[in-house]
Amino acid sequence: MSLKKMLNPQSIAIVGANSRKGSVGYDLFKNILNSEYKGEVFPVNIKRSKVQGVKAYKNVVDLEQKVDLAIIAIPAFKVFEVVKNCAKKGIKNIIVISAGFSEIGKEGVDLSNEILEFIKKHDIRIIGPNCLGFLRPSINLNASFATQNAKEGSVAFISQSGAFCTAMLDWSRKNNVGFSNFISIGSMLDVGFYDLLKYLKDDKETKSILIYMESLTEAKKFIEIAKEVSLKKPIFVLKVGKSVEGASAAKSHTGSLTGNDEVFDVAFERAGIVRLETMNDLYNIAKLISMQGVFNNDKLVIITNAGGPGVITTDALINKHGKLAKISKNSIDKLNKVLPNSWSHGNPIDIIGDASPERYKKTVEICLQDKNIDSILILLTPQSMTKPDVVAEELLKVYFKHKNKLLLVSFLGGDDVLKGREIFEKENIPTFNTPELAINAFINIIKYNNLKRDIGKSSTPNKINFKKNFKKNVLILEKVKSEKRKSLTEKEAKLFLNNYEIFSAEHKVVNSKKEAEITATEIGFPVVMKISSPDILHKVDAGGVVVGVKNKKEAGEVFENIIKSVKKYNKNAKIEGVLIEKMVNKKFELLIGCMRDEIFGHVVVFGAGGTYVEILNDTAMELLPLNNFSADKIIKKTKIYQLLKGYRGQDGVDIQKLKEVLIKFSELLTDFPEIKELDINPYSIDKNGGVVLDAKILI
Amino acid sequence: MSLKKMLNPQSIAIVGANSRKGSVGYDLFKNILNSEYKGEVFPVNIKRSKVQGVKAYKNVVDLEQKVDLAIIAIPAFKVFEVVKNCAKKGIKNIIVISAGFSEIGKEGVDLSNEILEFIKKHDIRIIGPNCLGFLRPSINLNASFATQNAKEGSVAFISQSGAFCTAMLDWSRKNNVGFSNFISIGSMLDVGFYDLLKYLKDDKETKSILIYMESLTEAKKFIEIAKEVSLKKPIFVLKVGKSVEGASAAKSHTGSLTGNDEVFDVAFERAGIVRLETMNDLYNIAKLISMQGVFNNDKLVIITNAGGPGVITTDALINKHGKLAKISKNSIDKLNKVLPNSWSHGNPIDIIGDASPERYKKTVEICLQDKNIDSILILLTPQSMTKPDVVAEELLKVYFKHKNKLLLVSFLGGDDVLKGREIFEKENIPTFNTPELAINAFINIIKYNNLKRDIGKSSTPNKINFKKNFKKNVLILEKVKSEKRKSLTEKEAKLFLNNYEIFSAEHKVVNSKKEAEITATEIGFPVVMKISSPDILHKVDAGGVVVGVKNKKEAGEVFENIIKSVKKYNKNAKIEGVLIEKMVNKKFELLIGCMRDEIFGHVVVFGAGGTYVEILNDTAMELLPLNNFSADKIIKKTKIYQLLKGYRGQDGVDIQKLKEVLIKFSELLTDFPEIKELDINPYSIDKNGGVVLDAKILI
Repeated sequence: MSLKKMLNPQSIAIVGANSRKGSVGYDLFKNILNSEYKGEVFPVNIKRSKVQGVKAYKNVVDLEQKVDLAIIAIPAFKVFEVVKNCAKKGIKNIIVISAGFSEIGKEGVDLSNEILEFIKKHDIRIIGPNCLGFLRPSINLNASFATQNAKEGSVAFISQSGAFCTAMLDWSRKNNVGFSNFISIGSMLDVGFYDLLKYLKDDKETKSILIYMESLTEAKKFIEIAKEVSLKKPIFVLKVGKSVEGASAAKSHTGSLTGNDEVFDVAFERAGIVRLETMNDLYNIAKLISMQGVFNNDKLVIITNAGGPGVITTDALINKHGKLAKISKNSIDKLNKVLPNSWSHGNPIDIIGDASPERYKKTVEICLQDKNIDSILILLTPQSMTKPDVVAEELLKVYFKHKNKLLLVSFLGGDDVLKGREIFEKENIPTFNTPELAINAFINIIKYNNLKRDIGKSSTPNKINFKKNFKKNVLILEKVKSEKRKSLTEKEAKLFLNNYEIFSAEHKVVNSKKEAEITATEIGFPVVMKISSPDILHKVDAGGVVVGVKNKKEAGEVFENIIKSVKKYNKNAKIEGVLIEKMVNKKFELLIGCMRDEIFGHVVVFGAGGTYVEILNDTAMELLPLNNFSADKIIKKTKIYQLLKGYRGQDGVDIQKLKEVLIKFSELLTDFPEIKELDINPYSIDKNGGVVLDAKILI
Repeated sequence: MSLKKMLNPQSIAIVGANSRKGSVGYDLFKNILNSEYKGEVFPVNIKRSKVQGVKAYKNVVDLEQKVDLAIIAIPAFKVFEVVKNCAKKGIKNIIVISAGFSEIGKEGVDLSNEILEFIKKHDIRIIGPNCLGFLRPSINLNASFATQNAKEGSVAFISQSGAFCTAMLDWSRKNNVGFSNFISIGSMLDVGFYDLLKYLKDDKETKSILIYMESLTEAKKFIEIAKEVSLKKPIFVLKVGKSVEGASAAKSHTGSLTGNDEVFDVAFERAGIVRLETMNDLYNIAKLISMQGVFNNDKLVIITNAGGPGVITTDALINKHGKLAKISKNSIDKLNKVLPNSWSHGNPIDIIGDASPERYKKTVEICLQDKNIDSILILLTPQSMTKPDVVAEELLKVYFKHKNKLLLVSFLGGDDVLKGREIFEKENIPTFNTPELAINAFINIIKYNNLKRDIGKSSTPNKINFKKNFKKNVLILEKVKSEKRKSLTEKEAKLFLNNYEIFSAEHKVVNSKKEAEITATEIGFPVVMKISSPDILHKVDAGGVVVGVKNKKEAGEVFENIIKSVKKYNKNAKIEGVLIEKMVNKKFELLIGCMRDEIFGHVVVFGAGGTYVEILNDTAMELLPLNNFSADKIIKKTKIYQLLKGYRGQDGVDIQKLKEVLIKFSELLTDFPEIKELDINPYSIDKNGGVVLDAKILI
């Protein structure tokens, strides 16, 4: 069911409304009464016939007319009863403000589940519990117990933390930031980020979406809808719990799964979502998108009356992979005429400490006319001749003739620059306390534009041709399951991969010294010999691996030694034999692996393999499925790609072939969701192709 | 000469003082007149007999009495004349406000040099030119043309950007930050960072030093004095020009060398200096040290009425390598009694959204008594029941009984929390706009404490015994110089290293096919063969390297092929023969190199070697000289150290031996400062020791 009625109600019942100042039920009702909300609002209170001077009802079923939304602010244990009454009354939208559900442990979780089951049956939607409510400034509705109103605007803000909502609200009023929807989403018993994105996608008032996130449910649906939304409007997310300690605090706070934080990075990237780094970033992107909306401008010029801050700003821009606009020759000539000789003659444009408002104005005018420039960041430090407020007024005059150019401002200082800042903000030109914060916000928009360009490219079907043998793999897994094993033997794992045309070096399992000698000779020396046993996971520790076996005699001896070592290591191990494999020594060792994330499911991991893998940590991640685009992306994200593509005239590998291996790998994982872990490490590769040298599969 | 008189003058002459409002000479004189400066001030103006109602002098020599300081604010071309007059009058301290020197090009540089030469002779010190002047609040002296005064305090601020000074001043007044010295240092014709640190080291008013830096002169002296200062008081530096683009802007701005920015990192580290990352960090560390001084507290607890911001703060702390304090069992028991059941039961302490001032107070009281906790960060979001100002007042009451504990505050929001913030700041408890900014400032103090612990450890003399043959190396370099070469041949380079006991694999240069066959056989196969020619720098490109030569016959053939290839590549190349070397294939390839930085001189670079070196960028830097401590540090900074020390039961290398190689390398560089570049790459090493496989030396 759409959330349209929920967020645009004509009539509201406040269950738990009361006349006790300072209580949530008081504030909730008061807020609506005090606002100029055009709909109707009814207090419901089991004990009172009047609340704040208005006739009250004992029960929602007593209401004489239809109600679109019920807001419930009574103790948790009484909530279910009210929900049932809402169902009777035909109320389909409910906000549960009350805390005391999943976050208090088993009892609360049970209650939540009961309610959830009930509302699914009755086609009711619930926001909350444990939330602040929501604000919809455009219809003058403050359906929350936050005592302040939000300013009307185009940003939709969704927060999983009610407490953070009030801070954001308070901050936004001081900073002239306006909202289309301001929603405290609480514990997400029913309505979650997915539902809200789905609604906001087509909400005409909403031009951009800002999310404060602690955990995520319905992850795959969320990513899919986010892709659709991102094509139309940007989504910025501050997702907390990056550190293990933070994640653990978040888990204790919300009582929900937090997943592997790194996976959020790749998931967001795929969905076109820009991940914010700090609370400051959240504030400042809110300011930027509220005042200027989304833009495509990225050719930035910095104009400053202070050289040093110009340098700092340049550092910040470059550090975030931004670029300085190249001022046209024509503009340089013009600037030479209006600026003192000692101006910087480049970008940043240092117009020198004694710059007057007039000099600022002339410089900005020239930049506004330069086609090489579409964004201007004004820096100002308060010198005695500066007059920050006059600068602001003069710049506004020239700027308004060129609305397609972006203007950002950072006036540095305290009281001396306050008025100048205010003059800008009144006209929706965002100002930032430091230029670095301006750059961060600016770059976040550029990030959005870049991500948007690639949305969907990861989703087009793969176009490679290969013969997969699904059924054979089904049989392998059935055998493993029937033997109650959790892991495949190396031979099984290699066969499993082979059935999807991910090939290994030539190998065979032998069962006697004699057979070892013959097989090794057939394969050709040198060979590697490894124990084959479902009970031995760490073959090296068990003395079960010998590399570089050079001749027939040695092969026989090694066979006997391996069997002896392994028996000593684990006398009960079921030994299937010794695997003899062609010894391969190709140029590069790669890791092709996957893990299963508790939130996003299978994640592919690719990168440098072998011993170095853990130390260098040169790996990248991608969500399933991989296609040519995302396989390319995951390869290019690693440092070893520089070598793989051929470095300084040295041979690399066939990148297209490697991509195909990754795509087959991805398909294998998609076809067999029961795989918990699949690691090919190393995958040995050179210009002539690659082979699996070792593989581990857990189910 | 000490700067004591300069910064504590009894009498001041203002050359260029005038009555024209808005001019620098007007503001300078007015500022001193308006302050309650106890000393005397005399206007000097060539055209006026009165300035701002005060009797003026035509020339400093006309002054009837002794003057400690002259401040000059007249056009650049007239400055030298005044300086000469100051010398006549016996004025030893001068501030040149005027711009128009080194930053305008050759003419200005020449003028600067003349003045510098003159003042050296006359024992005069100059701050500036192109500066704002300085402020000394404790003696009510505003000797600058900044129209605002600074608040008195314990922070010394030195800025290379005058424009940034005014922003900082304005900001500091609004944020209650006080200064002992506030100095605009300008173009550093004479007085530089070194001189000021030397003075501030023993300045009793100064408890900490904050620097805004664009470039550095007298780098080695600066580092040495900074070490001494850091032992007594912290130095925090915002050094700009991290990016190439930023450095280039800084260069154009200051007209001075900017050096390799990464080298600043290691130089600062060695000096105990904490490098700041952003302007926000500069503001916030100023606030923290101004209000709380330096502390040793690092056991931080986070107390919050909002779970989410608690998580964000935890993330920020862990990301910066901080730690959460472990709350004692006893405190947990006490907290259980005063907090609602749903509190977080750990650190961060989430006291839940409905927290009253009383609940905040009780929680803080318990934490103040916990020996496991010595720092408290209070977070607050404005809920309807919160009363931020009451929280502030209540917390101050309990806090003042426990002054040895640190209290930091971040009240989130806008107007609702403004008063609460002000109440804290009035009592010198620093508040921060976001908790991440609080964490950054906190961590910067911890960084200082950690750096301080290691100051000097890099300076104790090396204690290794080895036989170096200095004279033989002198001869090698003399030969190279006499032949007008800029580079050593590989054989020379290896000998050069060998003379300092940095050994190579066995090798010999041969001059005929026959000799090649004999020598290769003597050395033992396989061998590597390389062209030996002073004219061939890129041996591989010239077809001058063959590896894996397996037998006598091959050795002879390879000799002929190499000579042929090289002659084809460069028919004029002087060929000394072919170097035959034992082929070594040890487990690890390292890079041991050095570069000469334009500011700090020789810098040692150590890390992973071979092909991967450029791609993985797993290298670390250290200044010369290396001793056991710094050699250890440079090794441990690399990722490959994890492998070198022995990883997962695999053999590593003898780290102590490797350190000794680095120390010898360092000594070699110290003994031969004419070396411009010395790269050993690869240095091949395993558990049995290491050898130089290739070496390049440029002089």
